[in-house]
Amino acid sequence: MKIGVVGAGAVGAYYGSLLARAGSEVTFLLRSDWEAVIRRGYWIQEQGKETFQLYPVRGFRRTEEMGPCDLVLIALKATAREALRELLPPLLQPQTVLVALQNGLGNEEWLSDVFPNHPIIGGIVFGCLTRTAPGRVENAGFGKIELGAYRGAREAFLREVALQFERAGVPCSVVESLEAARWRKLAWNIPFNGISVAGGGCDVEEILRDAELSRLATGLMEEVAAVARSRELPFPEDWTKRMMADTMRMGRYRPSTLVDFLAGRSIEVEAIWGEPLRRAQKLGVPTPRLQALYALLRALDRRSGAVPKLH
Amino acid sequence: MKIGVVGAGAVGAYYGSLLARAGSEVTFLLRSDWEAVIRRGYWIQEQGKETFQLYPVRGFRRTEEMGPCDLVLIALKATAREALRELLPPLLQPQTVLVALQNGLGNEEWLSDVFPNHPIIGGIVFGCLTRTAPGRVENAGFGKIELGAYRGAREAFLREVALQFERAGVPCSVVESLEAARWRKLAWNIPFNGISVAGGGCDVEEILRDAELSRLATGLMEEVAAVARSRELPFPEDWTKRMMADTMRMGRYRPSTLVDFLAGRSIEVEAIWGEPLRRAQKLGVPTPRLQALYALLRALDRRSGAVPKLH
Repeated sequence: MKIGVVGAGAVGAYYGSLLARAGSEVTFLLRSDWEAVIRRGYWIQEQGKETFQLYPVRGFRRTEEMGPCDLVLIALKATAREALRELLPPLLQPQTVLVALQNGLGNEEWLSDVFPNHPIIGGIVFGCLTRTAPGRVENAGFGKIELGAYRGAREAFLREVALQFERAGVPCSVVESLEAARWRKLAWNIPFNGISVAGGGCDVEEILRDAELSRLATGLMEEVAAVARSRELPFPEDWTKRMMADTMRMGRYRPSTLVDFLAGRSIEVEAIWGEPLRRAQKLGVPTPRLQALYALLRALDRRSGAVPKLH
Repeated sequence: MKIGVVGAGAVGAYYGSLLARAGSEVTFLLRSDWEAVIRRGYWIQEQGKETFQLYPVRGFRRTEEMGPCDLVLIALKATAREALRELLPPLLQPQTVLVALQNGLGNEEWLSDVFPNHPIIGGIVFGCLTRTAPGRVENAGFGKIELGAYRGAREAFLREVALQFERAGVPCSVVESLEAARWRKLAWNIPFNGISVAGGGCDVEEILRDAELSRLATGLMEEVAAVARSRELPFPEDWTKRMMADTMRMGRYRPSTLVDFLAGRSIEVEAIWGEPLRRAQKLGVPTPRLQALYALLRALDRRSGAVPKLH
């Protein structure tokens, strides 16, 4: 199975490298990191393990050089998605499957509109991944992936992809409802990615330690749970507690949105906060905290003057 | 009536200058602006009117030099209130009346605890006052004051103070319920001062123009109204609409909290957001937006590393 990785930030580099190390045929689209990665390969630092190097890396600066793939892992920020219109076609053959390895809502819908003839899978990442330097990625904990069919992906194929991840050392499960899995993940991203930025640059430990920030995080989680339940999506009773407990083990992790914001890059305001808010409003579920956070983050993002950028 | 002004930032300088111009005997406690004010006087720029200069100004660097007063206008930020323990005693004689010309809740309570033998009045300022340079204050609109007895102030005295303000050209009314007036003012300060900072530096025009920020502002106003009404305090049905309409006339006004925040000074997190939130919680009135804003502002204030400062 030939795998292409588009958007080789922390997520794309990490999973692509693990798959390549396990023997999959992986090619990467590289931009700013091209020189570093071609010269020295990828360096992956897994918490509590030895750093491993992937070398050489099949990295290219244009998707035309990568050629058609069986599977494309899309790990581009939602804010940069328009670039996919030109980036993806050279990678596509009739049965190429697209995997949206992105946060928030609306990514699969967008892909489905623009590439209506390809099976689409949604991938949800539970990992504390940070690109610490060109070609260097650190995983501060977790790393699990959940895969769910969005459209046209056969179950057998999904299981095969999951198996490739598992063989690469990535815990990977196939979920029945992609929508439910997306909301469960949003129950983490909405509070932690949002508060980290709107609170002026807090890591997750600071959020948990501050009684008011942590109360706000819990309140946001409950709003997300209420939306999911109003759609009758499975959302375990103890999910928010489990999320809080998992977060305690992350140490001083900075959510990716904060890393982007501090680097002057635009943040995924619509995918993570705007789209969930609009769906909650359509369903008539009150989400006052989510509205507050969305309004503030939108203003912060606009004022940062950032323009969408590729890695 | 001898009037002392303590905390000669925008509010103290503006009202003190107007009272002095109208013939009242006003002395000012000055800190960083002392040299500028002694040399060149106060320059007050009133919207749509000619700038007027108050010169000479009876300004001193220590309250010991000011001597006892009949009335003390306290326009120090709530964050700097501890300084009043040492600043006020030299100004006090047995019947000296203290006027808390400050935002938020808890100022009169604090004065009452620390100076239990003095009548206390609360003063609520509706003005777009900004200190633009040492000794220079701009009023971008409004300027009204509401006065209410907190403890021990005779009604006849209150009316006399109000008259002095009126003679100085300041619209001034005496309110029956100080608590109600404080909540009505909070319905402006909580959203506009808060969003201006948490939104990354928005003036009031930006807040009104942005559909989501303006929805958040309205939501916060409604939470404040609900708290006031649960206390059976008079809170007019159309108050939030009137507030929004008044705000539209303020142009690109930056609330004082934003000015303080951008200058690296601490902000009045507890007086404007913390204390109202705690009272709402005690009353059992849900205020999720207020909690969110309080949590974020507290974190922003802490991270700014500011320490309380006098002007």
